[in-house]
Amino acid sequence: MSNYTKISREEGARVELHDKLNLTGAEISINRMKAGASVPFIHAHKENEEIYFVISGKGKAVVDGEEIRLEEGDWLRIAPPAHRQFFAAEDSDFNYICIQVRANSLKGYTMDDAIAIE
Amino acid sequence: MSNYTKISREEGARVELHDKLNLTGAEISINRMKAGASVPFIHAHKENEEIYFVISGKGKAVVDGEEIRLEEGDWLRIAPPAHRQFFAAEDSDFNYICIQVRANSLKGYTMDDAIAIE
Repeated sequence: MSNYTKISREEGARVELHDKLNLTGAEISINRMKAGASVPFIHAHKENEEIYFVISGKGKAVVDGEEIRLEEGDWLRIAPPAHRQFFAAEDSDFNYICIQVRANSLKGYTMDDAIAIE
Repeated sequence: MSNYTKISREEGARVELHDKLNLTGAEISINRMKAGASVPFIHAHKENEEIYFVISGKGKAVVDGEEIRLEEGDWLRIAPPAHRQFFAAEDSDFNYICIQVRANSLKGYTMDDAIAIE
């Protein structure tokens, strides 16, 4: 397998990147919701932490019954057992990525994991 | 610790999210480079896979000596041992996120890790 994989912008209401990017430490989805739309179910996770990043637009998350407003540039981490559901705003599309990683899987990072070449 | 952490848009040439978001399975940095700027060193990783997403602008990566052009919406996965360096384009700022996760740490994901609540 190559040491890198690149993909360009992909269209669609939901694009899952794990297989397209040959990911081994995360799954990432790109989600594009129209104004007024919502994910039609509440879910939690067994082992995975989720990290959401709002690319553009506005919406909200409901986490364990608490409403959290979200807009462009916002980040939201959700622990595995939390009950979560996502909604676009009534008057705005809502475009976000969701990064799924195994909770507590990271060891060293940045300077503790990097090797300086030159 | 709360089941969620939210942060809003943060300014700065480099913002590291691990501690701000209480991440346990990833480190994520937001990087904003001016036209003509570059990361001044080549680096590799011991254990971590890196996943780059271009928020806006244009630039390039050099991975093991190979030049890869990058623009808004592009994704790039790089395996731990690859030698990498990043550059903004001469005529465009380059804004991207870098997600660092431990290679091969993901087990089940999406339907295999989710719990449907209702």
